[in-house]
Amino acid sequence: MDYNPEPYDDDNIFAKILREEIPAFRVYEDADTVCFMDIMPRVDGHMLVIPKTPCRNVLDASPEQLAACMKTVQKISRALMGAPYGADGITLQQFNEGDGGQEVFHLHFHILPRRAGDSLRPPRTAADMDDVKAEAERVRAAIEAA
Amino acid sequence: MDYNPEPYDDDNIFAKILREEIPAFRVYEDADTVCFMDIMPRVDGHMLVIPKTPCRNVLDASPEQLAACMKTVQKISRALMGAPYGADGITLQQFNEGDGGQEVFHLHFHILPRRAGDSLRPPRTAADMDDVKAEAERVRAAIEAA
Repeated sequence: MDYNPEPYDDDNIFAKILREEIPAFRVYEDADTVCFMDIMPRVDGHMLVIPKTPCRNVLDASPEQLAACMKTVQKISRALMGAPYGADGITLQQFNEGDGGQEVFHLHFHILPRRAGDSLRPPRTAADMDDVKAEAERVRAAIEAA
Repeated sequence: MDYNPEPYDDDNIFAKILREEIPAFRVYEDADTVCFMDIMPRVDGHMLVIPKTPCRNVLDASPEQLAACMKTVQKISRALMGAPYGADGITLQQFNEGDGGQEVFHLHFHILPRRAGDSLRPPRTAADMDDVKAEAERVRAAIEAA
């Protein structure tokens, strides 16, 4: 491997969300991970799962960080399928390095709850914050009901 | 969760690949996983990582199956970054249930090695098998060199 990534930048926006220096619509948290709403959702309910500890992406993550993220991804994905939330499928995306599509350099997994016949909105399209907040409440209710 | 998936179908094409009933361009294998070329590549070098044991997708996978897949995803992703293979980034995709984009119902993670400025080819576009074979050889060489 001839890959020399930038060092982890503790000022990335997800690090700031973890330190609660900037707000986020959190929908789930456990000892090792946080899940919050993407504010540029490709679909309604688009969420991000991140580890609480620093790493840049999948390339430098520890087995423990990957396992913790996948556990939360699975838990939330299961909670959204079927009633009450009503997802018909789940699309996962994960981007590594800028040319891989990564924009924030703290490991994150995208969870896209899908509805039959939907299509993804264009990337980088900011949503109405009231809509994101309302969707976060629906997601939280589904996780609590699971 | 109100999600009642179909049972695992042992005749899905990845189960047949695991049993070597149908061919695949395998690039890596360990005790728990196999990685082989996607024959409808969205980019050159598009690969799939699957567990050797049956599960439908992330929704029903065991922690061990998820960990084994992520270990292989990471190993191969690292091997492709920089020289000799020359990936500039890695995009991961993973689809759950038909409405989530899943077409073969054996858990699989898509690894898309990205090059600066590239874009994804349309889905479901079959490639020339000689091109896929040649790309598999480049991937294998990079994994061996890592």
